[in-house]
Amino acid sequence: MKEYNISQFDGGVTAAKGYKAAGVAAHIKYEGRRDMAMIYSATPATVAGMFTSNVVKAAPVLYDMDIVKNSPYVQAVVANSGIANAATSQQGMQVCRDTAKAVAEALSIPENAVLIGSTGVIGDPIPMDRVKAGVKDLAAALSDTRQAAADAEAAIMTTDTVPKEIAVKTTIGGTEVTIGGMSKGSGMIHPNMCTMLAYICTDCDISKEMLERAAHTDIPDTFNMITVDGDTSTNDTYLILANGEAHNPRIESEGDDFDAFLAALHFVNEYLARNMAKDGEGATALFEAKVINADTKENARLLARSVVGSSLCKAAVYGHDSNFGRILCALGYSGAQFDPEKVSLDFTSSAGTIRVFDKGSKCDYSEDTATAILSEDEVTVIIDMDMGSASATAWGCDLSYDYVKINADYRS
Amino acid sequence: MKEYNISQFDGGVTAAKGYKAAGVAAHIKYEGRRDMAMIYSATPATVAGMFTSNVVKAAPVLYDMDIVKNSPYVQAVVANSGIANAATSQQGMQVCRDTAKAVAEALSIPENAVLIGSTGVIGDPIPMDRVKAGVKDLAAALSDTRQAAADAEAAIMTTDTVPKEIAVKTTIGGTEVTIGGMSKGSGMIHPNMCTMLAYICTDCDISKEMLERAAHTDIPDTFNMITVDGDTSTNDTYLILANGEAHNPRIESEGDDFDAFLAALHFVNEYLARNMAKDGEGATALFEAKVINADTKENARLLARSVVGSSLCKAAVYGHDSNFGRILCALGYSGAQFDPEKVSLDFTSSAGTIRVFDKGSKCDYSEDTATAILSEDEVTVIIDMDMGSASATAWGCDLSYDYVKINADYRS
Repeated sequence: MKEYNISQFDGGVTAAKGYKAAGVAAHIKYEGRRDMAMIYSATPATVAGMFTSNVVKAAPVLYDMDIVKNSPYVQAVVANSGIANAATSQQGMQVCRDTAKAVAEALSIPENAVLIGSTGVIGDPIPMDRVKAGVKDLAAALSDTRQAAADAEAAIMTTDTVPKEIAVKTTIGGTEVTIGGMSKGSGMIHPNMCTMLAYICTDCDISKEMLERAAHTDIPDTFNMITVDGDTSTNDTYLILANGEAHNPRIESEGDDFDAFLAALHFVNEYLARNMAKDGEGATALFEAKVINADTKENARLLARSVVGSSLCKAAVYGHDSNFGRILCALGYSGAQFDPEKVSLDFTSSAGTIRVFDKGSKCDYSEDTATAILSEDEVTVIIDMDMGSASATAWGCDLSYDYVKINADYRS
Repeated sequence: MKEYNISQFDGGVTAAKGYKAAGVAAHIKYEGRRDMAMIYSATPATVAGMFTSNVVKAAPVLYDMDIVKNSPYVQAVVANSGIANAATSQQGMQVCRDTAKAVAEALSIPENAVLIGSTGVIGDPIPMDRVKAGVKDLAAALSDTRQAAADAEAAIMTTDTVPKEIAVKTTIGGTEVTIGGMSKGSGMIHPNMCTMLAYICTDCDISKEMLERAAHTDIPDTFNMITVDGDTSTNDTYLILANGEAHNPRIESEGDDFDAFLAALHFVNEYLARNMAKDGEGATALFEAKVINADTKENARLLARSVVGSSLCKAAVYGHDSNFGRILCALGYSGAQFDPEKVSLDFTSSAGTIRVFDKGSKCDYSEDTATAILSEDEVTVIIDMDMGSASATAWGCDLSYDYVKINADYRS
């Protein structure tokens, strides 16, 4: 496998050249905090996106799908947290059109260069007067600083407890290219799409076709491999903007430059996806399942996702219990066919590694050692299928009292 | 729809003629409680079964599948709670053979007339000496009393908080026929099969082919429509024995008699399935989803199961929150296609009925009234798809702190 020189640094959606951002308190639903975010690129940007597979798609999802497909370029994203604008019928679509119009006026850009995002309560109407006021405040606050990116991230968070931002630099065709990104979780998260909102901004010069190919190649192994609760949201949106401000040799086909871009994008996507899982609602630990030696890539993904999606496996991780029986059970109902007699399981974390199940039989292992390994805040189970050479990793979190508390009380 | 005269009465697996049962403390894993059960019919009984769809099938599941398929008749079922005898490789199969041999000797019946059941921790070995002692005690304790049935039910329970037993009488071909049954839940429960252990004993005279047809016709609408946590177990087993002791005109084909039997069996299956869902681990309420006016039966089932399987919907029920947005979201990722603009939703319970969502839009309803409706211990959401005439009902339970507590602490 080729090595790429990717360096991570502190930053978010303003890290790449030519991007500004802002986050303001627009009082959409929350009080006393930022709840509207904007990203802006003066240079028209190529865009690619992936959206929820849920049949009930929120109005901004339907709106963005159309923009991503039909607009020649985009220049702004505006998003609110608090109200999802889902199950809002034609009224919800009108809110998107009115919002885009307000953004277009405030930034002097075409209406079809504006993308919309929402996350929050399903079914409630969006207060359009507050959105319009928010848009004006956002336009006035736009800045290319690190703080502006942090403000934007803060404004899209709902039950998230920590911000998820990243910036990386890499070299493409001898030119330094930057990718910055932010995302928010953290409930109603499940593969296809899982993310809720993820916005990636790069200064790479890349054609729309190749940008789409990069996103569609990588997301099945990153954002679609995380789960918090098995609930695929109505609003999941992944957008990547590329404004070409790095002035690298334009990527218009596969090859070394595309591979270098894909590697950097994978770094960004995996980081954000993994951190969303770790910050899953009520989570006390990241729960990672690495399937190795599976027969096919698709089965490896099915198996890994089934394990991190199992309520019983998640509750066992919360209890620091090396409950390999539940792992086997979750593998067994994943939909993939396999021979249980070939399966081996190891638990691993920064506290060590222990084999608990070896080719169909329980190992004689120390429960105390296993409990110590499972008490770290990042716990991995390595699942060796002994069938082939395919592998996949999925990320989830444990199931805690707080997940129930958050979701019995919070109206989402 | 034809009406059948089905009367329910207090009873369990000994209710039908010719059945004895027992439950004893064999110290398989639990102490101070009954943990081995036996059912016995002196008259050879026809048998049908349905088993877990999990690829990782416990040894007794594999063993029973063979007996159900190949034995001309059966006379006994023996089951333990505490250790699942799953993921136990060839050693687990040997335990089944040795157990059947012990039962055959104790009851003077053929080895291939013995069925085996297990539920409990996956991966641990079964202590064969205790099983053998338990079998002797069970054989000595066999009785056709109501108490003996209750003892058997008590012996198969794990985290169940209430026993699930039922007995019904109906008339087939002018003859009184009885069906008695028992089952246990209550975690690792999800459609296909979901049940864990369910044992049904009838004195109906019915051919093996028609008994199988009855079970396979009804289970998709009963036991396969419940979920507690989405985890399809390794051990799920449904067995129905029919010993012919009622001496009704033998059912050998479809017709009025078969329909009457099927109606009574449905009553029994739905009762047991519904009560397993209601006694789901940590549950404070039964959560029922009734899909009406769907385009196809299969889609109606998918939609109903998706709703009762959603962690977010379950948490909302626990919080008495009329969170219709989560219901819509769960419908949307069920796999069924539909138009959200046609959907209407009502919450209903013994406290009343309220429409919260009408053909794509939120209703202006009283949250207080909705909360009152959702505060009962049996809560139903009626989901009108406005697409056709198919309907289906699924049963689950709310998601509480106690589910997490039980499963972080309990080794299953």
